[in-house]
Amino acid sequence: AHVPYSPPRYPEETMLQRSKEFYTLMNQRRSVRFISPEPVPRGVIDNIVLTAGTAPSGAHTEPWTFVVVSEPETKHQIRLIVEKEEEVNYRQRMGDKWVSDLARLRTNWIKEYLDVAPYLILIFKQTCGILPNGKKKTHYYNEISVSISCGMLLAALQNAGLVTVTTTPLNCGPQLRLLLKRPVNEKLLMLLPVGYPAADATVPDLKRKHLDDIMVHI
Amino acid sequence: AHVPYSPPRYPEETMLQRSKEFYTLMNQRRSVRFISPEPVPRGVIDNIVLTAGTAPSGAHTEPWTFVVVSEPETKHQIRLIVEKEEEVNYRQRMGDKWVSDLARLRTNWIKEYLDVAPYLILIFKQTCGILPNGKKKTHYYNEISVSISCGMLLAALQNAGLVTVTTTPLNCGPQLRLLLKRPVNEKLLMLLPVGYPAADATVPDLKRKHLDDIMVHI
Ligand SMILES: Cc1cc2nc3c(=O)[nH]c(=O)nc-3n(C[C@H](O)[C@H](O)[C@H](O)COP(=O)(O)O)c2cc1C
Ligand SMILES: Cc1cc2nc3c(=O)[nH]c(=O)nc-3n(C[C@H](O)[C@H](O)[C@H](O)COP(=O)(O)O)c2cc1C
Repeated sequence: AHVPYSPPRYPEETMLQRSKEFYTLMNQRRSVRFISPEPVPRGVIDNIVLTAGTAPSGAHTEPWTFVVVSEPETKHQIRLIVEKEEEVNYRQRMGDKWVSDLARLRTNWIKEYLDVAPYLILIFKQTCGILPNGKKKTHYYNEISVSISCGMLLAALQNAGLVTVTTTPLNCGPQLRLLLKRPVNEKLLMLLPVGYPAADATVPDLKRKHLDDIMVHI
Repeated sequence: AHVPYSPPRYPEETMLQRSKEFYTLMNQRRSVRFISPEPVPRGVIDNIVLTAGTAPSGAHTEPWTFVVVSEPETKHQIRLIVEKEEEVNYRQRMGDKWVSDLARLRTNWIKEYLDVAPYLILIFKQTCGILPNGKKKTHYYNEISVSISCGMLLAALQNAGLVTVTTTPLNCGPQLRLLLKRPVNEKLLMLLPVGYPAADATVPDLKRKHLDDIMVHI
């Protein structure tokens, strides 16, 4: 069945104002690698995950699972897995080119934030679904859909005054899937440490491209 | 160089309130396939594309190009390309399974919105960059980064009271790239018709999963 759809409509001045304010807010977002251990209300995290769940998805498959980890021992196990693989990534797998591209970000394989952040959100894509009769259900464009959903999650974090750093831990997926007891049809896409920024947090002094460098009008 | 980072911080009550309001707003988003021909201020579109450009990207490569088309003849050329390929997709390439999964959405290969919407935004991922010396620059995780950016764009559209339908036109990429004169390192990822919803717009009566079905807490 189809139903009528008439969302709120704003006058042009209001649209301009709202779109500008939202841009200003989102433009303040930065990837933060120094996270405060202070607790964050669980209800805020719930609302943020709910927001991520409003994303569109190919054929409405909603192919995402958000694993929210606050238990210290599990966070520490995650850290051990990620640091072990990341050390090999930096030393061997990524190549000199990649490592030098990352130099200005001053990232390395030590990830203190994995112990410190009050929450780690691990985002799994469901590469296929399982129907009640046990058959597989195709999940069209699952990686794109889950990445879009992650974009909405990042917007929601920023709106709430929380920070994260988007990471895609290379080669850690299978071990983290087992640790978190996720089924085989789920694959790790992203790992986001979430909290307030540390009081002395710094970020690389990056600039963003100008509108003319990202938009073409025809 | 690194610089201090201290974004605004809200009291807990405010965070709860803000995160809930943002969820409520985003939860009203729907994919709308009936778009009004009414004009939309160009400044709003600019702010929305700027917002998409604030997304994180692997090693800060910002691997996205947003082609905003409002010229009627180019929109019509896009429609001809997409409808021709989509008819073949529906009749031959997708298979009965996919077509039946889409039945409840009542989508088909006729895309009137491609002529009617005041703007079409075609989002290209730059699979690699070109350095001043002509050498290729690797774009790590470019598809994931651009999809995240698209999630922020969808949030910005919703915030402004505009609608779209996320589409990934199968097999149309090369022809649309040539039509829009984009370089070979760019590949079409998404096509979004953008505008106000038509006065009589309807949407499939879909429900979203509950929090317990998408979130696991450890
Ligand atoms: C990657 C991706 C590709 C999609 N492709 C199409 C498409 O080609 N045609 C279409 O009508 N809808 C398409 N959709 C929209 C989905 O059908 C829609 O998001 C889903 O049915 C959920 O509805 P909602 O967006 O209203 O919540 C796509 C969505 C995503 C995320
Ligand atoms: C797909 C993806 C993977 C990323 N992986 C890492 C990572 O492994 N480690 C890290 O410190 N930052 C990672 N980042 C963050 C980027 O380095 C960051 O977004 C970029 O430098 C721009 O900075 P900004 O987010 O502050 O605007 C990743 C970002 C994306 C989108």
